[in-house]
Amino acid sequence: VILVVCLNPALDITHEVAAADWAGVNRPDAVHARPGGKGLNVARVLLATDTPVRVLGLAGGPTGSGVISGLSGTGVMAEFTEIGGETRRTFTVVDRSRETSALFNEPGPLIAPEEFAAFAAGYERALDGASAVVLSGSLPRGLAAGTYAALTATAAAAGVPVVLDTHGEALRLGAAAGPAIVKPNLAELEALAGRRLSRDQVAAAAADLRAAGAQAVVVSLGPDGLHAVTADGSWRAAPPAAVAGNATGAGDAVTAALVRGLVIGQPWPDRLRHAVALGTASAAAPVAGEFSPEDYARTLDAVTVRRPVGFSPSSRNAAPEQCGDPG
Amino acid sequence: VILVVCLNPALDITHEVAAADWAGVNRPDAVHARPGGKGLNVARVLLATDTPVRVLGLAGGPTGSGVISGLSGTGVMAEFTEIGGETRRTFTVVDRSRETSALFNEPGPLIAPEEFAAFAAGYERALDGASAVVLSGSLPRGLAAGTYAALTATAAAAGVPVVLDTHGEALRLGAAAGPAIVKPNLAELEALAGRRLSRDQVAAAAADLRAAGAQAVVVSLGPDGLHAVTADGSWRAAPPAAVAGNATGAGDAVTAALVRGLVIGQPWPDRLRHAVALGTASAAAPVAGEFSPEDYARTLDAVTVRRPVGFSPSSRNAAPEQCGDPG
Repeated sequence: VILVVCLNPALDITHEVAAADWAGVNRPDAVHARPGGKGLNVARVLLATDTPVRVLGLAGGPTGSGVISGLSGTGVMAEFTEIGGETRRTFTVVDRSRETSALFNEPGPLIAPEEFAAFAAGYERALDGASAVVLSGSLPRGLAAGTYAALTATAAAAGVPVVLDTHGEALRLGAAAGPAIVKPNLAELEALAGRRLSRDQVAAAAADLRAAGAQAVVVSLGPDGLHAVTADGSWRAAPPAAVAGNATGAGDAVTAALVRGLVIGQPWPDRLRHAVALGTASAAAPVAGEFSPEDYARTLDAVTVRRPVGFSPSSRNAAPEQCGDPG
Repeated sequence: VILVVCLNPALDITHEVAAADWAGVNRPDAVHARPGGKGLNVARVLLATDTPVRVLGLAGGPTGSGVISGLSGTGVMAEFTEIGGETRRTFTVVDRSRETSALFNEPGPLIAPEEFAAFAAGYERALDGASAVVLSGSLPRGLAAGTYAALTATAAAAGVPVVLDTHGEALRLGAAAGPAIVKPNLAELEALAGRRLSRDQVAAAAADLRAAGAQAVVVSLGPDGLHAVTADGSWRAAPPAAVAGNATGAGDAVTAALVRGLVIGQPWPDRLRHAVALGTASAAAPVAGEFSPEDYARTLDAVTVRRPVGFSPSSRNAAPEQCGDPG
């Protein structure tokens, strides 16, 4: 089973209005509330690809109860360590007349050291029998930036590989702890580098992140697909056509495909092809964590996976070529 | 103890942002969540004026739990019949840069007949020992427009007087069931009359509503105060100066003062003076159900209570005069 760690889940509330009055009273004609946060999106995609998954996280207050009850019936097996604070909400107003959305993200609860300790004890127990761990999303307040690094080290000690999808200092420290894969997006890689990155510079920055400790680095480039730097060399994987859409959902689907490929031992080119196809299908879906299987299957055949053109440290010995299965 | 019926409570969530991006991502710097709905506002004001109060209502789902847990520690004694649907949220975005607020009101749950029956059984039991009942707010979906009329009749059979604050058909039917006081605001009275009402027409429409069955009608006129039509004659009660502000909170404070005056046998002019002062103090408070005791005390001395000028059916025999205590 794949363990998905969800330290900062959310209840995602969406109000749809015909035309929003930003200075008055609105009566939304559709209201949705569903469990969210990157970890839960990853878990849902894994479940939808028939991959056994178990969620471990932190939740508290009535909103935490809303997350837990929202998961019942979805098939996601989740155990949340109860916290004294209240799980965060996100609130989206969809204005149909303007075709815009406004998103309001609550800061979320402050985690006490003893609450994290209780979670960490359960996490360590759950590693026994886990095939991989996904550490995904931002850390809640109160947890040190090195939290994901510590969880990565614990998993490594238990022989369980980690896929890490976070940003900032938590990513930098986490990568140094030796996860199997880190999956920054372009903005997150640029934030780490401290500057905008050209296409060639992405390859170099990804290689730097790998040199810092990660066994593989997969950068999600939005509609441009993925850039991967691995022990087997580097690849660019791209969808047949740019699909604008749900960027959060797309990134989480890429993470899900990467950990699934890791667990089943998929060669990197296949793994990346699935990751691009699942990411593209999820970008087209209105809700993060969902995708159309038809979109997934159709895109899968059309993804291109190539060795990157041009010099970069990790592709030094790799000639540009189109790859099938290098197995 | 005063019973306050709260069939459609809400969890009121407020996000404060420095400057809202209505087409982007916002990180509110202050988040508030508190139990709301007119009944709970009335209950809080009663409690703040040292009046014993007991809330009976309907609540369900994690948001219902949020309402219940939000009341713990406030001193409001509340018993909610559990429903299968989810209690509604209201969502307010306060944009400090523009000094505007956007409010989003969820439609709320659908109540099943057996859920209301369970509530009604508890209500009937609770009438034993109650000094008065407040029926306040809109009816949730699934309940007939005659629901407040039925609850009024049940209370009347138990000898317990009712103060009714609602609108539309629920008000029309409820007034016919003979409550001690109905408290429409001007807009609600106009909706019932089917047209805009001048000052004189307000007096006539209020008298009509009383003739339809209510023992007294008190119309809240916003900054213009109150117009009351009672068995003891008619009055206008006005604050010293117009205070713009929290209209919802003001109306609920007026209802609280009216039921309190009813229970302690306050003569109408005193009752109206307190209602205007408490309404005015509550209009000045940022949050419904709260007020500054200093504002209340200061305003109380400055409220004017007069017999209304001009002919109206209920003031036919009353000469214009300033009233102290007619007792």
